[in-house]
Amino acid sequence: MALKSFIDVHPDSHFPIQNLPYGVFKPHHRGEARPGVAIGDFVLDLSAIANAGLFDGPILKNSDCFLQPSLNKFVGMGRPAWKEARATIQRLLSSDEPTLRDNDSLREKALFPMNKVEMLLPTVIGDYTDFFCSMHHAKNCGTIFLGPKNPIPLNWFHLPIAYHGRASSIVISGTDIIRPRGQGHPIGNSPPYFGPSQKLDFELEMAVVVGPGNQLGKPVDVNEAADHIFGLVLMNDWSARDIQAWEYVPLGPFLGKSFGTTISPWIVTLDALEPFACDAPKQEPHPLPYLAEKKSKNYDISLEVWIKPAGQEHSSIVTKSNFKHLYWTVTQQLAHHTINGCNLRPGDILGTGTISGPAPESLGCLLELTWNGQKALSLNGLTRKFLEDGDEVILTGYCKGNGYNVGFGTCSGKIVPTSL
Amino acid sequence: MALKSFIDVHPDSHFPIQNLPYGVFKPHHRGEARPGVAIGDFVLDLSAIANAGLFDGPILKNSDCFLQPSLNKFVGMGRPAWKEARATIQRLLSSDEPTLRDNDSLREKALFPMNKVEMLLPTVIGDYTDFFCSMHHAKNCGTIFLGPKNPIPLNWFHLPIAYHGRASSIVISGTDIIRPRGQGHPIGNSPPYFGPSQKLDFELEMAVVVGPGNQLGKPVDVNEAADHIFGLVLMNDWSARDIQAWEYVPLGPFLGKSFGTTISPWIVTLDALEPFACDAPKQEPHPLPYLAEKKSKNYDISLEVWIKPAGQEHSSIVTKSNFKHLYWTVTQQLAHHTINGCNLRPGDILGTGTISGPAPESLGCLLELTWNGQKALSLNGLTRKFLEDGDEVILTGYCKGNGYNVGFGTCSGKIVPTSL
Repeated sequence: MALKSFIDVHPDSHFPIQNLPYGVFKPHHRGEARPGVAIGDFVLDLSAIANAGLFDGPILKNSDCFLQPSLNKFVGMGRPAWKEARATIQRLLSSDEPTLRDNDSLREKALFPMNKVEMLLPTVIGDYTDFFCSMHHAKNCGTIFLGPKNPIPLNWFHLPIAYHGRASSIVISGTDIIRPRGQGHPIGNSPPYFGPSQKLDFELEMAVVVGPGNQLGKPVDVNEAADHIFGLVLMNDWSARDIQAWEYVPLGPFLGKSFGTTISPWIVTLDALEPFACDAPKQEPHPLPYLAEKKSKNYDISLEVWIKPAGQEHSSIVTKSNFKHLYWTVTQQLAHHTINGCNLRPGDILGTGTISGPAPESLGCLLELTWNGQKALSLNGLTRKFLEDGDEVILTGYCKGNGYNVGFGTCSGKIVPTSL
Repeated sequence: MALKSFIDVHPDSHFPIQNLPYGVFKPHHRGEARPGVAIGDFVLDLSAIANAGLFDGPILKNSDCFLQPSLNKFVGMGRPAWKEARATIQRLLSSDEPTLRDNDSLREKALFPMNKVEMLLPTVIGDYTDFFCSMHHAKNCGTIFLGPKNPIPLNWFHLPIAYHGRASSIVISGTDIIRPRGQGHPIGNSPPYFGPSQKLDFELEMAVVVGPGNQLGKPVDVNEAADHIFGLVLMNDWSARDIQAWEYVPLGPFLGKSFGTTISPWIVTLDALEPFACDAPKQEPHPLPYLAEKKSKNYDISLEVWIKPAGQEHSSIVTKSNFKHLYWTVTQQLAHHTINGCNLRPGDILGTGTISGPAPESLGCLLELTWNGQKALSLNGLTRKFLEDGDEVILTGYCKGNGYNVGFGTCSGKIVPTSL
């Protein structure tokens, strides 16, 4: 029989006892930031559980990792600590365990209705890297900008291409995104366009939250890379296509991206995702030895993008994609990142890049969906080529279990006009 | 008559009382990281001065900014705090002020010989950005890779191009640099090269240390940008040209750079550099209004690169350049960085990009000096196309005053073999 919590969890919930994702929250009107775990419509306060002495395993018993305003310390402790925490929390929340279930005063202290808390960034993010790992996305972008002949650069099939993004402007789901100003391509002999971006886009991504880091100069073996991955979040890598197109030669994206990147608040652990593991796509040419995995794994995570247009009450779905479409796995991404000796630190973020699938309805950004604005997207009677002020973009993702979901909740943001 | 310290300062020293650069140090064999100021061959311990109650101005009197293991808090306080600190320190160190000069016990506590301390990174670096602001460097790179026709991309003259670098692998001068491994261009139908980089290079740069940051969504006006700049350091943006050339299309430099970036430990403030301000180059086309400064300023800072080849006792000078060759000013760089709303934080690092001058002996990297390995550089009887294991690269920079220097000390690093 399936594991069940004493807390009522709706079958459609993303947060049953099989999930137990980690985040950082602040109760409304009182208190400090602290780590929590989502269970149904509640947040379990891990600082309260720790203060009650209920983390009684050998690793966590004397640790203050849940008495911190971020998850960096906990995620840096590695898989043995994660396994111990998961076992303890799963036991405390299960229907047949009285410790928390029958202790009114502890439940009062440790369980907060989700709508009574504010979610914060789960980690202090030292560095943020963004990869480019969906072949469909790479092919579509290449076709749009370079034409259909050789749209994917030769290096793409040999290494997971990436660039460093801006850590300071990563924000938590629900934060408004201010339309960036910047330069766009000049027309003829005029000076470049300057003003609010006219091609504001979303990008459907997921991102790894790094667990234990590696020392500078010590690469991580690809077959051990999973031990450096705490879990995954949803990520919207907002992009100003006009700014990006003008600035990106020769050093890559900069201001076209750095005005804001949204992540979802709940980190779903690899342990919770394990039942949904699936084979990664076959890689041809075969990767170099440092990228060749004994077992190359993806996860079957359904991904959706919804847009709620300015002034409307309802949102429309614009994309159905899946994490399993990624060509390069997250473990290959991490191994590649460190092969030159680059050091990762706990809490770092590694975005996958836009996750587009093969089908027209599985494209992960408006650039692809509207073919760079050449055709409009229909949204319940309205149309969009790029995002307008007031539009809200909502990403969601979930794995379908037998009678339950392991989900990521939502990752949302609304476009607000340029501030002057 | 020139200001003079009671501490003997050799006329060739980089650190007379006119300079007073800030760093973070740890005395050998004891104690915690703390802020200090360089004076001649000594380091003045600012935590000792603060603990003695000698920061008695209105802003610093009750601040713990010098009781921190980094300078982030102090640099974030802004110019009024910086001016007050400089006035206090300059007074305490001057030859006619008895407070410190005549107090043996305080001098004992507060002054450390420079060779008895370890220098650390001066700030916790939230994000690191690298610009591309020398026209000579841009032109030479373009000519090498694209040919002599239109070597500089059109956008270059309209905006200071930049990319985000890796903050985690920024190290302090004196740290060994481990030769990175990685992929290089395949030859014919072979798989890509994989192994230790065969084209390891230095890049002569300087970098801004950001003072007060800006809120997400609130650009900094170019005419107020200097108030967000605490000072400058030397920077060596080590580059693996073979890794970079293969990986950088289409998203820019990544592993070719992220294995290590060295900065000098002493931050020379804009106040100390002010006597050496000079006009920036005329910009044609005229920049867009958000980049147009009332007064466009550079600094006359002589820059040198020396290489001490593996196994040799002496180093040879390979480059003489100058900060004033930069086309885009540091204030324009900072204003551009924020025009899309991107937030900077105190302690962030903004590199200028390689600072090459117009003359053949003023080129800021081996890529240019050896024209991508086509000709060898002569080093006192030896030759180099790129860096070999055991080679040490030493950057230095200074402004020549009347009878004194305002200098940056050195920024050095030695290449050590790939670790396996």
